[in-house]
Amino acid sequence: MITLSSSHRSHSTVVTLRGPDGAPLADADVMVRQVRHAFAFGNIGFDFVDLAAAQVGIAADGPHVFGGADRESAERLVELWLDVFNTATLPFYWAGFEPAEGRPDTERLLAAARWFRERGVSLKGHPLVWHTLAPGWLRDRPDDEVESVVRARVRREVGAFAGLIDTWDAINEVVIMPVFDNEERQNAVTRLCRRIGRIPTVRLAFEEARGVGAGVRLVLNDFDMSTAYECLIEGVLEAGIQVDAIGLQSHMHQGYWGEERTWATLERFARYGLPLQMTETTLLSGDLMPPEIEDLNDFQPSSWPSTPEGEERQADEVVRHYRTLLAHPAVEAVNYWGITDRGAWLGAPAGLVRADGTPKPAYDALRALVKDEWWLSPTPMRTDGAGRITVEGWWGDYAVDSGASTATFALERDTPLVQATLA
Amino acid sequence: MITLSSSHRSHSTVVTLRGPDGAPLADADVMVRQVRHAFAFGNIGFDFVDLAAAQVGIAADGPHVFGGADRESAERLVELWLDVFNTATLPFYWAGFEPAEGRPDTERLLAAARWFRERGVSLKGHPLVWHTLAPGWLRDRPDDEVESVVRARVRREVGAFAGLIDTWDAINEVVIMPVFDNEERQNAVTRLCRRIGRIPTVRLAFEEARGVGAGVRLVLNDFDMSTAYECLIEGVLEAGIQVDAIGLQSHMHQGYWGEERTWATLERFARYGLPLQMTETTLLSGDLMPPEIEDLNDFQPSSWPSTPEGEERQADEVVRHYRTLLAHPAVEAVNYWGITDRGAWLGAPAGLVRADGTPKPAYDALRALVKDEWWLSPTPMRTDGAGRITVEGWWGDYAVDSGASTATFALERDTPLVQATLA
Repeated sequence: MITLSSSHRSHSTVVTLRGPDGAPLADADVMVRQVRHAFAFGNIGFDFVDLAAAQVGIAADGPHVFGGADRESAERLVELWLDVFNTATLPFYWAGFEPAEGRPDTERLLAAARWFRERGVSLKGHPLVWHTLAPGWLRDRPDDEVESVVRARVRREVGAFAGLIDTWDAINEVVIMPVFDNEERQNAVTRLCRRIGRIPTVRLAFEEARGVGAGVRLVLNDFDMSTAYECLIEGVLEAGIQVDAIGLQSHMHQGYWGEERTWATLERFARYGLPLQMTETTLLSGDLMPPEIEDLNDFQPSSWPSTPEGEERQADEVVRHYRTLLAHPAVEAVNYWGITDRGAWLGAPAGLVRADGTPKPAYDALRALVKDEWWLSPTPMRTDGAGRITVEGWWGDYAVDSGASTATFALERDTPLVQATLA
Repeated sequence: MITLSSSHRSHSTVVTLRGPDGAPLADADVMVRQVRHAFAFGNIGFDFVDLAAAQVGIAADGPHVFGGADRESAERLVELWLDVFNTATLPFYWAGFEPAEGRPDTERLLAAARWFRERGVSLKGHPLVWHTLAPGWLRDRPDDEVESVVRARVRREVGAFAGLIDTWDAINEVVIMPVFDNEERQNAVTRLCRRIGRIPTVRLAFEEARGVGAGVRLVLNDFDMSTAYECLIEGVLEAGIQVDAIGLQSHMHQGYWGEERTWATLERFARYGLPLQMTETTLLSGDLMPPEIEDLNDFQPSSWPSTPEGEERQADEVVRHYRTLLAHPAVEAVNYWGITDRGAWLGAPAGLVRADGTPKPAYDALRALVKDEWWLSPTPMRTDGAGRITVEGWWGDYAVDSGASTATFALERDTPLVQATLA
């Protein structure tokens, strides 16, 4: 039996409030409110790329890979998305991002990145190196050329988005990468990885990305939760490659893992002392995918509806899953995989919003966690004679209002005393 | 479709035969015969430990771990064993080898090692480090002490058997080692591996063994044929640990792999450029173990008989499997796991000989490969005017008889011309 507690994510903090003159604001009525979570509550931002691009005059005719609502639907999703999530994953699937060599989709993605940043959303790029969706034009290049083109691609993307995207899935699904054979003609990245080995391929991605982006956070991401991924991680770390976080996918199209398995998985991967990012989290609100399917891409029925029973189940599982994840101190990010069923990966009813734009119960349930149970709503307080209030809340950004003035402060781990000055 | 050929294991070699005076033995009738295979056709030698020890006056009361016929049965197995196999795996299961700390079973195993060497059999020790059968007395020791005791054990065994055992399974089943949980109380080796990591544990075993035994061959051995083992191997090699051969277990209690899967497995592990040893090969002559069993140790029925149909299937599969393995140039050793059903691991009908001591069809079939189809039986030849004969045979040791004199030579890869002098 697992006892879940997220108490490690909040703390009682003494905030000394000062007026614009620097003197403590003694014995005053103030209103304290949370502005942002420090924890990364993420979702994919694929649906808003066209919308953001169109708003700065870039034609919305780019390719759609792995999800993306049409522009009209996206407009109605903006508020729902921003009300719950503070971190967006943007798509850099190479075959879609650079369908013709030398013509990358940089401008459109830059527009999307700026659109999110203007709205206070942190960004992650996904992924820099991956065998799936490696561009077809790379397939016939000689070995050494493949390597240099991959290296250049990594540098190009990290460089172009510096200051906007500070976290990247540097490389995706390396466990299967060199032995991936679910394709008619072997892609060039699989060929590269098979030739030079998994760890040199990881090193290549991390070194190139690190070389460009000072301070960039680089994630090793995989769907393989078996001992294989453990062995890969141990080899990568022994080889001295600096990994900032371990990414764990969890596309649960074949059913919710449950608390026990989830916790055991977190425990196995937490023992490397690195933060864990739940990079791709999916729970369905319809029929489950049959358990015998090995590659999820192999199952794409013509119709895969969201059902009332499925929606209730999804809401229950979303709450249970987020409670489990947030209870584990190693988890620093949970990225849900899809805001809407419209254009969802595999056509699955994986979104938190139905294709018609109405929120599913899972959306409301997740919002209730993120913006209510785990959130400090505006709370009236009174400072003491030294201008102090005691704030109990989740790590994150806060504001305190006194009349027409506002002060901001952050609650952070290991910071029991903070100062805030009204302006 | 795989085309199997073992032609890379033999070659046409010109042998110049000289008399005791050094002059070419021209125009003479000689008889050429193979004496030994260079290829390691191995089996466990567990059954003969008591017998060998008793022959030098050591009481046969040692523990039996993972197989071992009683002494009377063993006597009747000697000839069968030696007629087919040239390499024996000796048991160094720590809990059995050193049931009380400081009292290792060295003398008895030394007697067994000498017994085999006297009969021209090469030896492998199995295993130096393994979580299963780690001694119970190690369990309560503090962490740093566990590591130093493990290191000392590796040095002790390799040192004591220097000159007798030249190949060791340095470490066994590292993929599962740190997450092994099929036991009531965690063993000390799992605890060590979980604390320091898989690769440092591998390094520990290899470094200690290498430090003692100059020229010793060290094998990394596992039952996990998934990408996990690939990832482990890649990490170990990236870390600079010198592995002499990759060991692949293949206890096929749940059914023969078949040619396709076997070949694909060999191909995946051959790509590291290291020799492959099929360290533990089992095919049953009775009912198969149900496929849902994950840890083979969890299935030990009270009775598991060899059946006539099972014996025919086993013979067919043994031949097909050895043909496949020998056809792959990376494979340097095939070790069958058990000569007899008597005392066989799990009680399974895995032996090549029935519990009553009579050979199964698989024994005869394997013997026909090893000592007939892949073997040069005594063959009359006539030297030319320069004393030369052309011998076409498998790599190995040969003798040539001329009257009462005999010369020996070896056929080896990349050696098209050899000399042999009668004595």
